[in-house]
Amino acid sequence: MSDVLNEVLNANREYSQRFGEKGKLALPPARRIAVLTCMDARLDPAKFAGLSEGDAHVIRNAGGRASDDAIRSLVISYKLLGTREFFVIHHTDCGMQFFTNEVIRGLLASSLETAELTTSGFHHPLVPATIPIYGYIYDVRGGRLIEVEEATRAGRAS
Amino acid sequence: MSDVLNEVLNANREYSQRFGEKGKLALPPARRIAVLTCMDARLDPAKFAGLSEGDAHVIRNAGGRASDDAIRSLVISYKLLGTREFFVIHHTDCGMQFFTNEVIRGLLASSLETAELTTSGFHHPLVPATIPIYGYIYDVRGGRLIEVEEATRAGRAS
Repeated sequence: MSDVLNEVLNANREYSQRFGEKGKLALPPARRIAVLTCMDARLDPAKFAGLSEGDAHVIRNAGGRASDDAIRSLVISYKLLGTREFFVIHHTDCGMQFFTNEVIRGLLASSLETAELTTSGFHHPLVPATIPIYGYIYDVRGGRLIEVEEATRAGRAS
Repeated sequence: MSDVLNEVLNANREYSQRFGEKGKLALPPARRIAVLTCMDARLDPAKFAGLSEGDAHVIRNAGGRASDDAIRSLVISYKLLGTREFFVIHHTDCGMQFFTNEVIRGLLASSLETAELTTSGFHHPLVPATIPIYGYIYDVRGGRLIEVEEATRAGRAS
């Protein structure tokens, strides 16, 4: 067994021993929100946004993109599980800004089952125009959420 | 401003005030792992697997599926950011088991830009066969990670 696997299983054993009332949580998110953000290791959405188990759907991929799969997840979140507000949180120093689309296309093109990069904007036809969508950038150096407009004004949009 | 948005921003302010050394974390995941799991609100991968900020890539979608977008993210994680072990963690009482593919296809088909459901298996041609992939099921009632083979034997596979 690898060291990391062993550590993960030990940490999980401790977590489950203090599980308590969390075992009674309902399936729909209690705070009726969904968060779309990047897979980046430095981001812990539960911690930086103050979310407890049961509060919110969290969707993550490389770059926090509104990919078809993220949209599929948001549609399920909204239509089947009752979320009513979305947070889209990108971040500073994102790896995706260093890796050009060409580099990534090159990696992906090495297979017949090419996973296409999508460049879909956020107000997708499957997402109702009435749902509030908050756009923030997480500053990995300071831990703050910065509103997208504010970040743009300060020239810090990633 | 909505109540939830206000709460999130307040929680974030507190988090950033105790940010400390986290502002110096490097981009590549320190523990060289990536976790693919469901967006379900009851799951907090950092907590149930003992991960700190900076440790691991976390990829999440509805069902924890190995969708094209999840594969894109894992390829970037492995090839560009050096992860060397993957965890795929599904869970008990998953919403996706109640919503049939037909229901979801119906929802998604209401648009020209249909997001197709994928049924791709895990050993995708873009993922090297040599990388260890650990399959676990998280028990939402007890907080435990159950190995997939063990879960299947106990008739608890979700």
